[in-house]
Order: sequence, then structure tokens, then C-alpha cells
Amino acid sequence: MTHRRPVALAHACRLINHGPTVLVSVSHEGRRNVMAAAWSMPVEFTPPRVAVVIDKSTFTRGLVLGSGLFALCIPCRALADLTTTVGRTSGRDEDKFARHTIASFTGPALGLPLIEGCVAWMECRRIAEPHSEAAYDTFFGEVVSAQADDRVFAEGRWSLRADNADLHTLHHLGGGQYGVVDSVVSGKVLDPT
Amino acid sequence: MTHRRPVALAHACRLINHGPTVLVSVSHEGRRNVMAAAWSMPVEFTPPRVAVVIDKSTFTRGLVLGSGLFALCIPCRALADLTTTVGRTSGRDEDKFARHTIASFTGPALGLPLIEGCVAWMECRRIAEPHSEAAYDTFFGEVVSAQADDRVFAEGRWSLRADNADLHTLHHLGGGQYGVVDSVVSGKVLDPT
Repeated sequence: MTHRRPVALAHACRLINHGPTVLVSVSHEGRRNVMAAAWSMPVEFTPPRVAVVIDKSTFTRGLVLGSGLFALCIPCRALADLTTTVGRTSGRDEDKFARHTIASFTGPALGLPLIEGCVAWMECRRIAEPHSEAAYDTFFGEVVSAQADDRVFAEGRWSLRADNADLHTLHHLGGGQYGVVDSVVSGKVLDPT
Repeated sequence: MTHRRPVALAHACRLINHGPTVLVSVSHEGRRNVMAAAWSMPVEFTPPRVAVVIDKSTFTRGLVLGSGLFALCIPCRALADLTTTVGRTSGRDEDKFARHTIASFTGPALGLPLIEGCVAWMECRRIAEPHSEAAYDTFFGEVVSAQADDRVFAEGRWSLRADNADLHTLHHLGGGQYGVVDSVVSGKVLDPT
């Protein structure tokens, strides 16, 4: 039984608000790929828009430019090895899905390959910004579908608890080391001093 | 005794690689401000460049546009209340530093007010991109100085351990709730299946 549930687009940006590493997945004209990206962020809640850095050297970039589409899939602790693997290998010469038996399912809005075992998924339409793409490798996109695993994201919020620790998000520290968000603290507004 | 140490510019982007919430601090013509921003990311390692979303409604934005400068200060668990406070109040009518007795020190390269108690600090020169700023509230900047607290960032890497838990970074989940990176996992490259 799947734990995937739709996420209201008004809440979609919360999926990456806390800065997790994402997997960028794409398909175009019979080719597909998935890469890791530590550098992404929301840029607007409504309509939900995101920015993600996709380097000129990547195979992914050509597929994004060709199709005008990309997905962001959010991996969790259990996928640390997979995340490192797709971050360090290229899909240009060999399909990564086949090489590493990466299971995927089809995105509901755009038909993109979304990675099984992740804890959230967004399908995005590229907003063409040739200058930002050229100067900063920064792609902007509008989120058109969002889903999350209801064991760890429910009612529009992440719920990171001890009993779902394998589903907590990864935050790349460099060198294949990931910080994992295992605690939650509340901040309150201070009275003037 | 201070624990601030310079960080090589080649390692500066690692300070926000894992997606922490940042404090954006600015000063211009006798006014200063600090706000919280969950939305920032590196866009290039060398030269170190970052992107940060600064909404049109903020007082900070005018000071960035006026001075061409901004700093990113990275708060830690001990600063959750301060982060929420500067994220929910405006400095337009009253100086937040005075109102909340926020201690700062002067940035070494640009003279920006950097927030005491944070665990890392970057001074940035705005790279003028009027279109990205207008369309996505996204400001690009080049990092010209970087420092970090050597109890939690040393030799170019975050070192998040049980004995420095109060210094771990905050990752905004929404609603004043912050995830804290309290664990670290290693990912390895998988053999083909």
C-alpha cells in the first residue's frame, strides 16, 4: 500500500523550505535521467515556484532544456547511498535507472519519472530564463503537482519524529556526508528588551 | 575568547550547502537591519556565489539595493527565538538591534553588521540582476568574506556532534518550527545491479 498523498499546491514549497538535498528527474524523447542537487530553494509560495542549480556539464540539463520539464524528488535517510550514487555518476552513456535498478512511478501531471522511496515529489514546468541559466546555472520552475509520504508530511507540514527516522530528509554537507534533521525546535517572538 | 575563524572562500558555499535558514543583515546610510530568510542557496563554488530571496515588502530589500551589499549569518539552535523574532518583525520603523539588544560585530571586508551568536557569516556583494530580483525576488551575490565558529565548522567542513548540539543549524519547517540537523550519515556509491 502506498503512502503517497497529494499535497495542495499552496503547501508545495514547504517540501523544500528546510533545504533538503533533492533528486532532479527528467525524461525527453525516450531518454531519462536522475541526478542529485544540493542547491535548490523555493522562490514563491503562490504560485509555487522553485529555483534549482543544474550545471552545464550534466546530462540532465539537456533533457530539461529539451522537454521544458523537471521533477524534484526528496530523498530520505534510507536513500543516502542512492543519492550519492546518482550524484556522482552520469546518465549520458548508460541509463541510471537500469544500471542501479532504480524504481520509479509516473508523475500525475507531466508524466515525469518520480523516484520510489523518496518522501516527496514535485513536477515542475521550466520557466525559461536563459540568462540565469547561463550565468548561474539557475533554473526557475513552476510546481504543477506535489505529493508526499503521509507518514512524514501531513496536513501541509513535515512531521519529523523518532518513529519515522528513516524517512527524514538529507542535507548535503559535502563529500557524501548528509546532515539529517532529527530534532525540531520552536522559535517564539521575543518581547522587546 | 571568540571562536570565529576565517573560512577560505573556496569553502564558503559549504556553509549553506545543507540548506540552513539564514539571517540577512544589511546597513546603508546610517540604517541597519536583519531579517530571517529560509530561501537561500549557493549557485557556484568558485568564485563563491549565492542566491537569496528577499521579498519586495521587506525593509532589508531597500538597504540591499542602496548599498549593493548584504551579509548572510547562519543561526543555530540557541538562536531559534531570535531568528523567529527578526523573521516576523520589521525594522522599518524601529531598529531591531536596539529593540531586541541584538549584538553584532563588524564584517572584515565590507563593514556589514554580523550577528553575534551565529555559527557562520558571509559578506556578499550584490550582483545586480534586476530581472531576477523583480520576477522572483531572487538576489545573486558574490561572497567576499567568510567566517565560522571553529567549534562546529573546521577544516572546511561542518562538524555536527552531540557535544556541540546548541550550535547546530536551523532549517525552517514553517510556522516558527525548525528542523535541526542532529545526525550525520554517509552515502556511498552503489555497484551496478
